[in-house]
Amino acid sequence: MTEKPNGDGWLRTSVGGATPTSITVRGRDLPDEVMGRLSFSETAFLLASGRAPTEEETLLFDAVLTSLAEHGLTPTALAARFTYTGAPESLQGAIAAGLLGAGSVFLGPVEDTATFLHGIVAGLPDDGDDDASLANAATDAVRRQMDAGNRLPGLGHPIHTETDPRTPRIYTIAEQAGLLGPHLRLLRHVGSAFAAASGKPLPINGAGVAGAALLDLGFPPTLTRGFALLARTAGLIGHLAEEAESPIGMRLWREIDARAGDADR
Amino acid sequence: MTEKPNGDGWLRTSVGGATPTSITVRGRDLPDEVMGRLSFSETAFLLASGRAPTEEETLLFDAVLTSLAEHGLTPTALAARFTYTGAPESLQGAIAAGLLGAGSVFLGPVEDTATFLHGIVAGLPDDGDDDASLANAATDAVRRQMDAGNRLPGLGHPIHTETDPRTPRIYTIAEQAGLLGPHLRLLRHVGSAFAAASGKPLPINGAGVAGAALLDLGFPPTLTRGFALLARTAGLIGHLAEEAESPIGMRLWREIDARAGDADR
Amino acid sequence: MTEKPNGDGWLRTSVGGATPTSITVRGRDLPDEVMGRLSFSETAFLLASGRAPTEEETLLFDAVLTSLAEHGLTPTALAARFTYTGAPESLQGAIAAGLLGAGSVFLGPVEDTATFLHGIVAGLPDDGDDDASLANAATDAVRRQMDAGNRLPGLGHPIHTETDPRTPRIYTIAEQAGLLGPHLRLLRHVGSAFAAASGKPLPINGAGVAGAALLDLGFPPTLTRGFALLARTAGLIGHLAEEAESPIGMRLWREIDARAGDADR
Amino acid sequence: MTEKPNGDGWLRTSVGGATPTSITVRGRDLPDEVMGRLSFSETAFLLASGRAPTEEETLLFDAVLTSLAEHGLTPTALAARFTYTGAPESLQGAIAAGLLGAGSVFLGPVEDTATFLHGIVAGLPDDGDDDASLANAATDAVRRQMDAGNRLPGLGHPIHTETDPRTPRIYTIAEQAGLLGPHLRLLRHVGSAFAAASGKPLPINGAGVAGAALLDLGFPPTLTRGFALLARTAGLIGHLAEEAESPIGMRLWREIDARAGDADR
Repeated sequence: MTEKPNGDGWLRTSVGGATPTSITVRGRDLPDEVMGRLSFSETAFLLASGRAPTEEETLLFDAVLTSLAEHGLTPTALAARFTYTGAPESLQGAIAAGLLGAGSVFLGPVEDTATFLHGIVAGLPDDGDDDASLANAATDAVRRQMDAGNRLPGLGHPIHTETDPRTPRIYTIAEQAGLLGPHLRLLRHVGSAFAAASGKPLPINGAGVAGAALLDLGFPPTLTRGFALLARTAGLIGHLAEEAESPIGMRLWREIDARAGDADR
Repeated sequence: MTEKPNGDGWLRTSVGGATPTSITVRGRDLPDEVMGRLSFSETAFLLASGRAPTEEETLLFDAVLTSLAEHGLTPTALAARFTYTGAPESLQGAIAAGLLGAGSVFLGPVEDTATFLHGIVAGLPDDGDDDASLANAATDAVRRQMDAGNRLPGLGHPIHTETDPRTPRIYTIAEQAGLLGPHLRLLRHVGSAFAAASGKPLPINGAGVAGAALLDLGFPPTLTRGFALLARTAGLIGHLAEEAESPIGMRLWREIDARAGDADR
Repeated sequence: MTEKPNGDGWLRTSVGGATPTSITVRGRDLPDEVMGRLSFSETAFLLASGRAPTEEETLLFDAVLTSLAEHGLTPTALAARFTYTGAPESLQGAIAAGLLGAGSVFLGPVEDTATFLHGIVAGLPDDGDDDASLANAATDAVRRQMDAGNRLPGLGHPIHTETDPRTPRIYTIAEQAGLLGPHLRLLRHVGSAFAAASGKPLPINGAGVAGAALLDLGFPPTLTRGFALLARTAGLIGHLAEEAESPIGMRLWREIDARAGDADR
Repeated sequence: MTEKPNGDGWLRTSVGGATPTSITVRGRDLPDEVMGRLSFSETAFLLASGRAPTEEETLLFDAVLTSLAEHGLTPTALAARFTYTGAPESLQGAIAAGLLGAGSVFLGPVEDTATFLHGIVAGLPDDGDDDASLANAATDAVRRQMDAGNRLPGLGHPIHTETDPRTPRIYTIAEQAGLLGPHLRLLRHVGSAFAAASGKPLPINGAGVAGAALLDLGFPPTLTRGFALLARTAGLIGHLAEEAESPIGMRLWREIDARAGDADR
């Protein structure tokens, strides 16, 4: 028996590790069992959950990541571009700056909706199998939120005021994949219950439907924001690739600064 | 003619955009032409380059992203976990902290190798088609680096001292995909030339081979670090998922602090 | 009258601005009225509030910033050092990584305590002038927190279990400066009320007393975390200066990685 | 003899530490010897260098920090504000995002100039005491930079094209403090030598003079960027305080997005 510096084993990880001759992720040999066999999104699923997704899960997971990857010149894209303007040699800083704005206002609704839906489904006796009980639970939850003066997580969008184009597509793909689980179904009931109770329907937004789908894929609510960040990283790379080729940051700054100056000085 | 606030069109992006009823990425309708049709990695390729990859390119691109996703309790994973310890409510902060360490020492070699190889191939008359001229260029470049006392980008690894297990796998996949381009081939010549010149062979490392493969996929050297960051984000999500379930950050900090105290106070 | 692109003036800032021949901060000429006249902390006070502090306010403000600047090898210092290990060329990234862990667990209690105390004082008819009404309000608030099963913001510390050495010093300085305002006095009543109600006294911690003092200096609760971040930046520079001279990051990582490996592989 | 887990003492810090009853920074008792005795900038100097500054050094150090604290709606201020727009609950993220743009283009010139000047002075036999040898060294260095087609670090500014108003003020304060050291004097010679060689004088910019002054205060070039970051944190707090009161981020984003859309869709 050799002395073990980590005898009680608390300092360990099962995410990944390396020896001189091997690299392992979640217990699998990286070169032999992952590279060339799993796609990047399947690997991300494996890294987060410890298991590889089925083909159907991959279809829905890819659709969710893709739906959240990019949304134009958002504040987060602008933060990344302005950071690149000042520090083009540190791409990691520009991407980090872009991710840091993914908080309560943007992308945060993915997790808010997931937390909301998860709390309701966890309280149901049948894990949400029965649609009638989902509908009842939605009606109750909507009333509680409205009575408390709260907005409904997952409903409404500043730009997509009638329909968020991502939403019906996720539902279609989830249905095709046989993965229209209790959280996605509940969210639809929440939308209907809110329309009935308020008289003014709001669309299910892309963040909300993504949160619901990630729950139906088996992830806990707290991880849903992580996947939104992974997805958005791809969009930020796109913006920074473009900023490197056709920069707008410097000129936009000069214009903003000059306008602020016109008013102020 | 309506007045255009952006008359000369400098303030524009072709990465993505949204109208009330549509979302477009790189000119494609997101719900109809991307979601459910392209995988997440194909979408990332599209966002960065403006075109969707072929099936063969996707195979190699997925393998590269997968190869860089995770490498155990690295300094970047530890930075992400310690950040989560202090701010578990801001997952974006923990991921950003993890990415910020992807600089010149870790993951940066992806870009360094790409820049090195790109500079050599760009100087060849035939774009690197001919293997003999690649070999000659490698010999010259290795000599210049060694004469200048520089290390060779893409060679050597602190842990994988004999063979980096990712390297042969990328070469196999690139060959199967018909994408063994000039940069991947040049890197192999660089390895051989260094072994011949120095008498002590160093393995081609996973960062270097990833950089070479991304060049052969058509990306500029500056974007290669971006994909390393995208890949590593997946690994960081894995570490933070585990940290949320079985935290080590708080206990590790206490232990480090106590040990430093033993020596210091 | 020339056309103004910012006619309605919403795009403006009074924090600072520059023309070819001048730089202005909060309406003052930077070289003539700030540099050489105000210390850095007085300038920070001016930038945040729009007015320069009195001599007494400066004394307390400096003491608060100083008290929060450094606390050893904390998780945030470790995150900064590990980030520096990977990206020594981007000091801004290492400092940013260190700040990102200043969330709900560390430094966040500055703001939590401020929010808690601010809510109580704002509800008092006399703005907290009367000590008896502060004591009553403290007793009520402590009872409500305990009934709800919540911890008391500003009380208790994992290391300083009996007395946080920063706390009595801040009270002494505030008293000397004539700035022992309602929030600092209320926090003392909260400590007493908790001891009376629970039977086991907890010390007022350094984060809590800093939050209370910043309120008594006139700042809103949301800004208190900002000053904690400013203070901690100085400590992080110290750690990174030391890491550049006598690095521990690389060796600590190798040791942690090896220990995790002993248990895992 | 008790067993020491840190027997060889590599895992230690002299920046700071805490025991149940004390907090120490750079070997000084924080409450008794630092709080109420040193200002925040003196504490920052102590944390970085291990010694407290003299009164004269404090005067110059405060002037340098103050000069770099704020410069209007810069790209870094905009990145911080846009990040706050998306994640107002994580002030640390907004400040981190603002700092991440302090790279090679903005604030980086502080370190670039310091590195340039340090390299020259380090090569002089008399440590730069003699003005004639400084002038000669400046002439040589300017010629080398111009022959190589490089810009001169510390000279020129996009806005302050004739005189940077911070520069003469720093020189005046340094002279008053008796701290007009070799690096500040050399920078002036560099400015003259460039004017003579090129025929078109460029002003010494605020970043450059700050870098020179920090060297004359005894700091190594690599730390100069750290102080620029500390200074700028104060300005960012000012911008975020204003953004919380009178937000411009959301409206500015909407306007930018709409303009980009006019051109693009």
